[in-house]
Amino acid sequence: MITVGIDVGSMTTKAVLLNGHEWSSVIRPTGCSPRQSAREAFDELLLKAGLSAGAISHITGTGYGRIMLDFINNAVTEITCHARGAHYLVEGTDLVIDIGGQDSKVIRTDGQGNVIDFAMNDKCAAGTGRFLQVMASALGADVSELAALSRGAEPVEISNMCTVFAESEVVSLLAQGVTKENIIAGIHRSVARRVAAMAGRLGLGSLVTFTGGVARNAGVKAFLAEELGAEIHVVAASQLAGALGAALLAREMAKD
Amino acid sequence: MITVGIDVGSMTTKAVLLNGHEWSSVIRPTGCSPRQSAREAFDELLLKAGLSAGAISHITGTGYGRIMLDFINNAVTEITCHARGAHYLVEGTDLVIDIGGQDSKVIRTDGQGNVIDFAMNDKCAAGTGRFLQVMASALGADVSELAALSRGAEPVEISNMCTVFAESEVVSLLAQGVTKENIIAGIHRSVARRVAAMAGRLGLGSLVTFTGGVARNAGVKAFLAEELGAEIHVVAASQLAGALGAALLAREMAKD
Ligand code: SF4
Repeated sequence: MITVGIDVGSMTTKAVLLNGHEWSSVIRPTGCSPRQSAREAFDELLLKAGLSAGAISHITGTGYGRIMLDFINNAVTEITCHARGAHYLVEGTDLVIDIGGQDSKVIRTDGQGNVIDFAMNDKCAAGTGRFLQVMASALGADVSELAALSRGAEPVEISNMCTVFAESEVVSLLAQGVTKENIIAGIHRSVARRVAAMAGRLGLGSLVTFTGGVARNAGVKAFLAEELGAEIHVVAASQLAGALGAALLAREMAKD
Repeated sequence: MITVGIDVGSMTTKAVLLNGHEWSSVIRPTGCSPRQSAREAFDELLLKAGLSAGAISHITGTGYGRIMLDFINNAVTEITCHARGAHYLVEGTDLVIDIGGQDSKVIRTDGQGNVIDFAMNDKCAAGTGRFLQVMASALGADVSELAALSRGAEPVEISNMCTVFAESEVVSLLAQGVTKENIIAGIHRSVARRVAAMAGRLGLGSLVTFTGGVARNAGVKAFLAEELGAEIHVVAASQLAGALGAALLAREMAKD
């Protein structure tokens, strides 16, 4: 049975085609039309697999743009999909930390991919990828190079939690001669602290998996490990956890 | 007896010289040295009044920069000073709403200038002058012209409370063809709503006085009146309430 999961995030749309133990994926920018980017991601997935739409048993959508999709069979919240996808990627995961472009979430699961409790922030840019983006542009850097730039640096204290105030603080730290590297390390720690505080409210898991776009940032990962006092698992496909979870749920749906 | 109050805010430093029922004032940007700007404001005040420092019985400092001042006789929190100053400017004030460059506060008083309760936000840029500044620059406008630009406009709904997310929303509203005027009105309402929510927790007063730099913005004032269902008093000198309150408290101190 072949199923598809599509995760329409605020920044990128992820689509996964699942066929037994094999899966392939497509990632593209969401742009201004979530519906169109999801459709294009789906078509590209089929093209890569050499399949027609009729070969797909079930399509499950997730992510904030899921409600705009008209070609899916059902929609599931991203919390459920992330929990399922993270467990598939790292078996036994019981705490999922997901930091995306505009939100962050912490999901406590039963170690089998089922949600027990979760906390989410999508109201405040602090502790999300957006915070990193604002800071990167204040520093004249690209967000993708932040982790490499700050490797081995000493984090400077960023006292403002608010993205807007922290941006001014970063500009004044630069003016005071603090190195860009140490500032970036401080920025990474700020994101980690904010999300770790959210995780703290749910209770620490024994197997922590870090997903979402920001999971590719090794600096944030290292500070998360420090703040939580736990090892953090990141897998190459961690950005795809939501779409993968959706494809897994699609398989269950199709079986019913 | 002649006393001086100095209110060192994040954006501007205000100094008031009080002599009986007469008072004069100086306002200057705080810049990077609160201490220096306070000193300069004080010197300018003396120069304007044709007085030497020895003629001043007591100097009271307030505002976030008060702890850095070495030439004052005592320091008092801005909450206390604002309550006192607002009562002096509008007698009988029992609710003070102060929106400054980086914070906002709501102070419930006994109608005699004494604080009963207060709420304050200095952690989040939303609901402060900083929010207006970020939005003004996203719109290519100056913050001082926002009120005039939006006079008579229909406020558009700004759904994001966060300054960072609201800024993106404003950019996309512009792209959708919403007029700048209606967007600005929506921005004013957003600030008013956030601060009114804070006031709601303290209970509505019967005489509301609006102070701080943002009190000069007639758009925010009108939406505050709408949100609170109350008349809002703004006086020309409302930006000076803190410094004036400090000068009044300085007089009481000198008498003791
Ligand atoms: S604290 Fe800053 S980043 Fe967070 S909601 Fe407020 S304005 Fe946005």
